[in-house]
Amino acid sequence: MNRPNEEFLNAAKGLLGPSGWSEDPDKLEEVASPWRGTNNGETPFLAMPASTEEAASLVKLCAEHRVALVPQGGNTGLVDGGTPHGEITVSMRRMTKLRGVDTRNNSMTIEAGATLVSAQQAAEEAGRFFPLSLGSEGQASIGGLISTNAGGVAVLRYGMMRDLILGLEVVLPSGEIWDGLSGLRKNNTGYDLKHLFAGAEGTLGLITAATLKLFPKVSKATAWVTCETPANVVDLLALVRDHAGDTVTSFEIIPANAIEMVKADVPDTRDPAPSDLPWRVLVEVSMSREDQARETLMAALADGMERELAADVLIAESGQQASSFWHIRETIPLSKRAYGTALNHDVSVPVSAIPDFLTATEEAIQKLVPEAEIVAFGHVGDGNLHYSACAPKNPENSALSDNAEEVTRIVHAHAMKFGGSISAEHGVGRLKRDELAEIRPKAATETMRAIKLALDPLGIMNPGRVVSV
Amino acid sequence: MNRPNEEFLNAAKGLLGPSGWSEDPDKLEEVASPWRGTNNGETPFLAMPASTEEAASLVKLCAEHRVALVPQGGNTGLVDGGTPHGEITVSMRRMTKLRGVDTRNNSMTIEAGATLVSAQQAAEEAGRFFPLSLGSEGQASIGGLISTNAGGVAVLRYGMMRDLILGLEVVLPSGEIWDGLSGLRKNNTGYDLKHLFAGAEGTLGLITAATLKLFPKVSKATAWVTCETPANVVDLLALVRDHAGDTVTSFEIIPANAIEMVKADVPDTRDPAPSDLPWRVLVEVSMSREDQARETLMAALADGMERELAADVLIAESGQQASSFWHIRETIPLSKRAYGTALNHDVSVPVSAIPDFLTATEEAIQKLVPEAEIVAFGHVGDGNLHYSACAPKNPENSALSDNAEEVTRIVHAHAMKFGGSISAEHGVGRLKRDELAEIRPKAATETMRAIKLALDPLGIMNPGRVVSV
Repeated sequence: MNRPNEEFLNAAKGLLGPSGWSEDPDKLEEVASPWRGTNNGETPFLAMPASTEEAASLVKLCAEHRVALVPQGGNTGLVDGGTPHGEITVSMRRMTKLRGVDTRNNSMTIEAGATLVSAQQAAEEAGRFFPLSLGSEGQASIGGLISTNAGGVAVLRYGMMRDLILGLEVVLPSGEIWDGLSGLRKNNTGYDLKHLFAGAEGTLGLITAATLKLFPKVSKATAWVTCETPANVVDLLALVRDHAGDTVTSFEIIPANAIEMVKADVPDTRDPAPSDLPWRVLVEVSMSREDQARETLMAALADGMERELAADVLIAESGQQASSFWHIRETIPLSKRAYGTALNHDVSVPVSAIPDFLTATEEAIQKLVPEAEIVAFGHVGDGNLHYSACAPKNPENSALSDNAEEVTRIVHAHAMKFGGSISAEHGVGRLKRDELAEIRPKAATETMRAIKLALDPLGIMNPGRVVSV
Repeated sequence: MNRPNEEFLNAAKGLLGPSGWSEDPDKLEEVASPWRGTNNGETPFLAMPASTEEAASLVKLCAEHRVALVPQGGNTGLVDGGTPHGEITVSMRRMTKLRGVDTRNNSMTIEAGATLVSAQQAAEEAGRFFPLSLGSEGQASIGGLISTNAGGVAVLRYGMMRDLILGLEVVLPSGEIWDGLSGLRKNNTGYDLKHLFAGAEGTLGLITAATLKLFPKVSKATAWVTCETPANVVDLLALVRDHAGDTVTSFEIIPANAIEMVKADVPDTRDPAPSDLPWRVLVEVSMSREDQARETLMAALADGMERELAADVLIAESGQQASSFWHIRETIPLSKRAYGTALNHDVSVPVSAIPDFLTATEEAIQKLVPEAEIVAFGHVGDGNLHYSACAPKNPENSALSDNAEEVTRIVHAHAMKFGGSISAEHGVGRLKRDELAEIRPKAATETMRAIKLALDPLGIMNPGRVVSV
């Protein structure tokens, strides 16, 4: 790959226009510094195309000059996928238009740079519902969420981001535009390219716009439940689904020690139902009629108490109370870091394997670092746990951070042993590329390499992410 | 491509074993003759592997000898995708094992040759529900349904076949096995290969097994509704979804003339609610609690009558009565053919465009063939219409069949004009390959060709289907 030369830069500035680029060192540092401050990078040039045509001309120019580019949305990624390391940065921040909403067709076309919150609001204003929801939704962009196939708290019912797209508009590595925008639910006209670009982390093309599925608005009933064991939690999930079918939209597990961390970090936090039991569940049932949702959730949890799967059950009496439950859940990642060392992992296992996975992994870690505290929380409904080994700030004792690599090895080895994945919803990027090349079936990695070489023969699209070629 | 020679045939027979192959002319003709008797083909050799390993060895042998193969499931395809035309045929009929059910994880792993009905039954026996449902479910195979990304009558709520798979096992064109079986809901570990093989119609690999999503069992409330106009039908769909959210699992439109055809073809058929109005809707709401489903459906349709979107409403009082509604719907394709000439099309348009599409297309066809009767029925909930121009058997008048090509041109041109697709759920095969190469954005066809060449460089996997290279 070439660093951009004078000729390239002049041409790029010309086609992007005065407000479409920057070489300001502060701006360059900003886009090279991801959300959580990890894996800082470096970039010689920031491009901010205002239209699909500008983006396409820029990519064509990159191809001509063999200049590599990194597409960037909200810069909230966690796997060093969207941080430039010498490549030029193509920020989608200026492409935020809502191109159209079709309420009858329950679809909406929006540009890649729009934030998730703005997409949720556009759906809301159209009397519809866009279900993807996650902690960084105020900053994360539609294009980034598609490129990383983001998950979040409603996957149990609505699926991942890829399941919420009907069509895409993509600038291919050649600079050609593929207009695959479509509101169609059924369209069997060849290989499903949108599913190839979704989750490809910008390595096969630059997503410029998407047609998203909208859903009828729903009313939610939310409960906070205390449980004794992970086995109880998994059994409770099955029981609640027996009652509520797949109107169960969220089923989040929270350990008691995480609540203590949030309370220490955010003084005004109240534990909704103080208890000596080690586990909490945040469960949400969504139906078109609030009375039915509430009635269904209460019946399910009453049954859960009778069967001694649930101890205390607190049904939110207001949207505000429900938000206070969710606030605790969403604050855990930050409070963990405030607490001290936190070695974080994003794994998934079959739901049925969660209890054994938790026992075996904690045992193995504490054999290595006895004082390690395990904080495992997240989307038990899809088997996705955010699994952290934590230790309080303590200059005298760095046992946990000293063993960081080995702890990660243990967590990932156990995820695989239980038929799971070491990258559930955060993706591959550069962070997990080589480890996954080892873990993945060889045939899969070879197939991915063949696809990358076929679609980006020059290797200019976010090179070195997902697969090395 | 080579015809199989002596050496190939001996090696193939050796690795498949005595019951794993056939050269019996009747058997060869059977597999070369698809379900509906159209596009008959020819094949020199029928392979019936009993295991993934046998299938892999066979594909490796085909690669060595440059012998092309056509994977075949239930042979119920409609686009000349699974019918051999000189290639050897690899029938999956002997690979029907249920490899396992995980009720806690709501997943099931089953081999590609199993019929859809057998998969539905396996789910049922596990106290779960597998939602895909279509007319040919007794014969269509899981592998074929995945390879064609089949649709059916529950897509509105549960999506297409691709949306119901968690993992795949595939024999690659090299003969390597990719074990992508997985019960994980979240697994962002690279390009999503299962979505590439799903809908590829066997041109990128041979699917040997799949892990399928299972759902909680649901109770259904079913209604038969008469409507005056397609606009009323589309408005009624929106209204029912306002009431019932996405617990609306089916919303099928049926024209009155189709019911007449079924009555003439199947003497004991009763019109559930005789009416002079030209349209019927078959609507189904599915919820975990039958009382809620019924209550919700009745409230929605009462509202629909008040707003004069629905004329007569008949709620099924029993599963048997619901089946009698569905029987009419499912019999239309056969009764159309019994009636006389039927030029069939499988199109989709955005739901919002259905009324204008119907008016414009009928007008254009009847300008060409005034006596043409239009039968447009199907899945209005996902904008997918099975659109037929029909004429009674009449040796004196062949105006419709004489204009078959032009009629198809008109239907497809209108589907495209309204932002639709000429292949909604039936796929591409050989039938629509060249027309789609014209219609599809050039960038999409080029990308598909690049993928085909990269993954099947020898061109032995179902050559000439989906894209020509």
